[in-house]
Amino acid sequence: MPRFYYEDFQEGSVERFGSRVVTREEIISFAAEFDPQPMHLDEAAARRSPLGGLAASGWHSCAIMMRLIADGFILESSCMGSPGIEELKWLQPVRPGDRLAVRRTVLEKRTSKSRPELGFVRFRFDLVNQNGETVMEQTNSIMFGRRASGA
Amino acid sequence: MPRFYYEDFQEGSVERFGSRVVTREEIISFAAEFDPQPMHLDEAAARRSPLGGLAASGWHSCAIMMRLIADGFILESSCMGSPGIEELKWLQPVRPGDRLAVRRTVLEKRTSKSRPELGFVRFRFDLVNQNGETVMEQTNSIMFGRRASGA
Repeated sequence: MPRFYYEDFQEGSVERFGSRVVTREEIISFAAEFDPQPMHLDEAAARRSPLGGLAASGWHSCAIMMRLIADGFILESSCMGSPGIEELKWLQPVRPGDRLAVRRTVLEKRTSKSRPELGFVRFRFDLVNQNGETVMEQTNSIMFGRRASGA
Repeated sequence: MPRFYYEDFQEGSVERFGSRVVTREEIISFAAEFDPQPMHLDEAAARRSPLGGLAASGWHSCAIMMRLIADGFILESSCMGSPGIEELKWLQPVRPGDRLAVRRTVLEKRTSKSRPELGFVRFRFDLVNQNGETVMEQTNSIMFGRRASGA
């Protein structure tokens, strides 16, 4: 049985999840597979790029944040997926050795009229590094099954 | 020297890039690392999920689209990164065996006042499967160096 249902998310609540160090090896490995731009692959080329040094692909940051969120609460929840992302900003480079965490804010929630067994929770997720800088922010809704699943 | 600069993107132009088959093994491998929800990891659990069968993590679809875009034109361009994503919708599940391509539409473009050496090109990217279904759509701007780089 899930621990967190739609009813368990409180509007305005703020929680922090996770702690994950990003290594040079995984930055390069992800980039080689999905985003082989020199600034994500090679230190010398990255120094000449707008990022000024090796930095993770923005999509790698997204994938890392997903894992932090999954381990933080999604895997223990009645999550039924997400329709997409409303907005996502890459604010700061993610560097080798950075330690990342997620700050989750529950913005609002609403039940579904057409599917009474679920509700939408709209979140703001900030990916934060060891210096307290927000490196990425994302707003999106996730669907969760309801505790009193209107069957 | 890059082949594509800011000047080479024509508002309203539509192009198609790539062809990549997504395997069951890579769906599970990506999910195990970044999004270990049962619907992305295990066929039996996935059948009982809202997706009705094994499907790729939405972030895996994003990463695959990035690779198609990179190979399609970004790696031959004066790309200087992206500030983020305006909107992203996951419309259909991506299944094992699906063959994916990207349809790129240039929505609009503008030069940067504060940084005359670059410009912003705003794109719509549709990720399309072998049946012509759009499985994901994304709107975002990418920064490109200008050909007559105001140096």
